[in-house]
Amino acid sequence: MSAGVEQPLANTPLAGVTVLDLTQIYQGPYCTFLMAKAGAEVIKIEPVNGEPTRTRAKVGGGASFPMAMLNTNKKGVTLNLKSPRGVALFKEMVKKADIVVENFAPGVMDRLGVGWSILHEINPKLIYGTGTGFGLSGPDRDNLAMDVTIQAAAGLMSVTGVADGPPMRSGASVVDFLSGVHLYAGLMTALFERSRTGIGRLVEVSMQETAYPTLASNLGLAYRAKGTVPPRVGNRHGGLALAPYNVYEAADGHIAFVCVTEPHWNNILTAMNRLDLQGDERLSTNKARVENIEYTDATIEAWTKTLKRQDIFDLSKKHGFPAAPVRDLIEVMNDPHMHERRTLEWFDDPELGRVVLPHTSLLLHGTGRVETIASPSLGQHNAEIYSQWFGYTEQDLSALAAGGVL
Amino acid sequence: MSAGVEQPLANTPLAGVTVLDLTQIYQGPYCTFLMAKAGAEVIKIEPVNGEPTRTRAKVGGGASFPMAMLNTNKKGVTLNLKSPRGVALFKEMVKKADIVVENFAPGVMDRLGVGWSILHEINPKLIYGTGTGFGLSGPDRDNLAMDVTIQAAAGLMSVTGVADGPPMRSGASVVDFLSGVHLYAGLMTALFERSRTGIGRLVEVSMQETAYPTLASNLGLAYRAKGTVPPRVGNRHGGLALAPYNVYEAADGHIAFVCVTEPHWNNILTAMNRLDLQGDERLSTNKARVENIEYTDATIEAWTKTLKRQDIFDLSKKHGFPAAPVRDLIEVMNDPHMHERRTLEWFDDPELGRVVLPHTSLLLHGTGRVETIASPSLGQHNAEIYSQWFGYTEQDLSALAAGGVL
Repeated sequence: MSAGVEQPLANTPLAGVTVLDLTQIYQGPYCTFLMAKAGAEVIKIEPVNGEPTRTRAKVGGGASFPMAMLNTNKKGVTLNLKSPRGVALFKEMVKKADIVVENFAPGVMDRLGVGWSILHEINPKLIYGTGTGFGLSGPDRDNLAMDVTIQAAAGLMSVTGVADGPPMRSGASVVDFLSGVHLYAGLMTALFERSRTGIGRLVEVSMQETAYPTLASNLGLAYRAKGTVPPRVGNRHGGLALAPYNVYEAADGHIAFVCVTEPHWNNILTAMNRLDLQGDERLSTNKARVENIEYTDATIEAWTKTLKRQDIFDLSKKHGFPAAPVRDLIEVMNDPHMHERRTLEWFDDPELGRVVLPHTSLLLHGTGRVETIASPSLGQHNAEIYSQWFGYTEQDLSALAAGGVL
Repeated sequence: MSAGVEQPLANTPLAGVTVLDLTQIYQGPYCTFLMAKAGAEVIKIEPVNGEPTRTRAKVGGGASFPMAMLNTNKKGVTLNLKSPRGVALFKEMVKKADIVVENFAPGVMDRLGVGWSILHEINPKLIYGTGTGFGLSGPDRDNLAMDVTIQAAAGLMSVTGVADGPPMRSGASVVDFLSGVHLYAGLMTALFERSRTGIGRLVEVSMQETAYPTLASNLGLAYRAKGTVPPRVGNRHGGLALAPYNVYEAADGHIAFVCVTEPHWNNILTAMNRLDLQGDERLSTNKARVENIEYTDATIEAWTKTLKRQDIFDLSKKHGFPAAPVRDLIEVMNDPHMHERRTLEWFDDPELGRVVLPHTSLLLHGTGRVETIASPSLGQHNAEIYSQWFGYTEQDLSALAAGGVL
């Protein structure tokens, strides 16, 4: 971290911060993606055969896309932590690093001989981040965790879907990414603390615990219901406290919309050209609309069905109430708004060709933008990193590779 | 921030950091909740009538729970930023603060005369965080944003639900909290940068952009499908690359489970006591199981239906494959694991009585734990804060209240 300290202004907030990134799949790689995009030197350390997302790409094919999307601006090396030579090499790297991040199951790093307590002794300034399903302690510690099992265990599935259907997962990997950004957040907190104390911390994030707060509305409803479990509400408000609040059928798809305040309701009626409904007692207050929620929703949908998504959306902007067309993946990927903001960009990936990739969503105004560099191929930077850090020659590297260490 | 700098070890990572918190609803308050739980002094500044979550509590009742849950360990003051005296007072507070956070619509703070450029001039060390639906620039900047509309606009809804049903929102407020923790993450990044540069930054987070990466699997599938939109997959794998991967009916509810590797598959067959199926070509590889996904799921569910969730779960732990009972809100709230870890705790809230509240999920080992203090009532700390900071007497405060400033 020497470089950044002397500069009066870092052109990227994490310039000079070195990260050893042992992470895999989505949670950890998203954490280190945010670091790489903020200017940190992130060294993605993979087993000799690659991390699971890379190997899974061979099976289904689709995984090569997440691999390309979440590992831009990282350097890629291989290292076999199951070999004593690999462990020794890793310990040497730790002496030069600011942060180690991993999202193995609890105990894996300890069994490899590179757990927090050992690394902390080697480098007391080191900050160590670990992302797991259930955390490093407690009776559920060793339960196997994936986005989908945590969506189930954490209660998110139980509140998604309709009352007479099964519990439903969010089709997006919300818990992996929620916990990934929490891991980044915890590590930044520790990095700030270290700037005052000089000492690194063990930072722990559990997927289940990062998911819990998202249930705030639902927990509020359970509280009001005196501890009975409220039924699933489909696309209605989680607390059944607002109406209209739903996803309505349009002539060409669906549109979400929401009435939060009484002015919104009047704006909706204006957009519908139905100010006559101001006299309808079943609709006159939010309380009344919630009590007559089927009637409220039917009234809205009878109107939305006659119009296209975009026309309804234009009316919502003209008259002032929150609405949004339900957009599909292709629409989102091509969103002119995010492309104009350069948080999405077209990029020529060496493996995939021309694809849309996201930039960081942490925008610090006035800092330099890290230009996108493609996700590394397996071991792409072995020569560069190991030579620069340890003076290894090509011969040394060949010998390490032949010995199964790289 | 003077206190923290001289201490050799801060007992909480954000000790000595002062935050002026203008946030409302979930996104911003979750960001400042994480700060308060890390030891920052968070001053929640509300309009004279309270922020929307507080006022909404009067209508539906349920909102009082999120209010209690997300505002612990903050101090509460009122301040009317629509009065010139209120604006002047706020500017005096900014001189003493490290961070200002708000999640108003873009432009609101500028119109009030307290936008970033003005505050930055008053205090160049100030870090300013803003959370919005679509960011501070771009054609969609002024679209009204709520968790549900962003779930629609960002594409999350389009991948949730079943192929022959409507797009479905996640019943949890995943985007509010995703963007809330991103806002915290961006602010910590800026705080670390400031420790090296002495200068504060404007930190911007858009809900839509923080949601995008969660679609990694789905975007991978769209990529493979050459830009056509894949159908919704219900509870199956977002990329349809793994099977079995679903939520199955049990005798007393539902259980999620997932087969990621071939060893998992053999472990599932062992748990089912159906090693005879090893010879079934429709199931012999992941590729085969994906191709015969209906048959695969039917085979699993014929078994799960005969057992209770917990029995299947116990078998999954015994034999080694990822699974999780779909738990309801009451089960989650009472989870022995999170209570043992003290990330959930029973707490006597002055308004709600004895309730379960979450602690932070950012666990920095070795730091002091911030003990929970109840969410403030409206203006609870007016006397304390305004007297301590500006020497106001009771008379001064009464005059300010009478003038509509507090």
